Amino acid sequence: MSAWDPDVYLKFGGERTRAAADLLARVPLSAPKHIVDLGCGPGNSTALIASRYPNADILGVDSDEAMLAKARAEHVQARFEPGDFETWTPHQAPDLIYTNAALHWAADPLAVAARLFQSLAPGGALALQVPQNFDKPSHVAMRAAAQDGPWAEKLRDAFQPLMLGAQDYAGALAPLGAKLDVWSTAYLHILEGEDAVLKWISGSALRPYFARLRGNERTGFEADLAARLRRAYPPEIDGRTYFPFHRVFAIASKGA
Amino acid sequence: MSAWDPDVYLKFGGERTRAAADLLARVPLSAPKHIVDLGCGPGNSTALIASRYPNADILGVDSDEAMLAKARAEHVQARFEPGDFETWTPHQAPDLIYTNAALHWAADPLAVAARLFQSLAPGGALALQVPQNFDKPSHVAMRAAAQDGPWAEKLRDAFQPLMLGAQDYAGALAPLGAKLDVWSTAYLHILEGEDAVLKWISGSALRPYFARLRGNERTGFEADLAARLRRAYPPEIDGRTYFPFHRVFAIASKGA
Repeated sequence: MSAWDPDVYLKFGGERTRAAADLLARVPLSAPKHIVDLGCGPGNSTALIASRYPNADILGVDSDEAMLAKARAEHVQARFEPGDFETWTPHQAPDLIYTNAALHWAADPLAVAARLFQSLAPGGALALQVPQNFDKPSHVAMRAAAQDGPWAEKLRDAFQPLMLGAQDYAGALAPLGAKLDVWSTAYLHILEGEDAVLKWISGSALRPYFARLRGNERTGFEADLAARLRRAYPPEIDGRTYFPFHRVFAIASKGA
Repeated sequence: MSAWDPDVYLKFGGERTRAAADLLARVPLSAPKHIVDLGCGPGNSTALIASRYPNADILGVDSDEAMLAKARAEHVQARFEPGDFETWTPHQAPDLIYTNAALHWAADPLAVAARLFQSLAPGGALALQVPQNFDKPSHVAMRAAAQDGPWAEKLRDAFQPLMLGAQDYAGALAPLGAKLDVWSTAYLHILEGEDAVLKWISGSALRPYFARLRGNERTGFEADLAARLRRAYPPEIDGRTYFPFHRVFAIASKGA
């Protein structure tokens, strides 16, 4: 898992927080006591959780210290501790494990989801959201640009995406007895300016690629990708670009 | 537009009301005075609107008298009047026009959406939701079954679906100066029992097909389609069937 750049990430915070809010809105718990925000990043989602559940004990967990420092600086009513969600286990059984835009970085997201569900207290819920754009034009362009240049060798294993959709998460959690609420949403982002899609994905999906390139190679890769993205997402007459961004949501509730 | 069967439709009311609620939740108005629920059906959505805006004057409009009778019997805090949304125009400029799962029956949904937006009061909003499954396996199976039997001639023009997605609605409303919030969602319905997908679509998308067939022809068409749907949506080991149902949402706000 590569480190996030909090400033690039937060540049689009408003729109990205929409998914966090949509996920939280469907959590069917009125007063969970112990909540974990797993992969809490800079604490945006943790602040949302605290606003819905002001009396809960909330623990934010992230593997990135820069993110945790940012989260602590926001004075959210929560504790924060470092941890890698691939291996992290709760100190006590949580009533709610909330994990927004994080699980897809795991080598085996379904196994992590199953393990998290099983760690819940009776009556608890796991709420997860992951982006799912691997088969969409943005990611097709990313992979094509990566393969089609002198940087191909360096980018060969930059990111091996798992093609997991809504039904995969449902199929992993249903056999554990979870009551499920599963959906996927494509938010139509209406972006301003040139190369808007490139800028959007620079803070997230592109980071493992950028991390492997320096100088001219990075510039060349970026220019090649920019051209592909302009073709895949041609701007409207008014100069704005429509960019559907796909996300999978699953809420798995445990019997009391 | 063929008439709905309120009982079949309401059989799945709980799950169908989810989309109505999701649409309403994003309406960025705190206290609209005049609200129209266009294509209000049996009043489920009207009741939702009344619960969010208890002080508003709400008018439910539908072309189907059986639906309006059902709506009136529910004692929702609203008035109801017959009207066809293809031609219906407001008596006074509404602050909110809400139209849930109706506009897709129009011959030209984009033209209707544009006209409705223009009829809004300053500062008003148009909130629309339409199913969008025309290219999905359920509808592919429907069209294949319709073409592939002795009933083909009768079903030839049963329903000519327009392939309109999120970007089409955005593209129709943006030039009118609308501030847009557009997304599409696939709700993963987890259905119980045999031929669950067939039962699901019998109350809605299949009605124009059923309306053209009698006796053995209808039975034959239904059996042929049932077999196709079982192949397209094989049940899970636990006997349940995953059925993603796709919907497009658009909220278009007018400057004050």
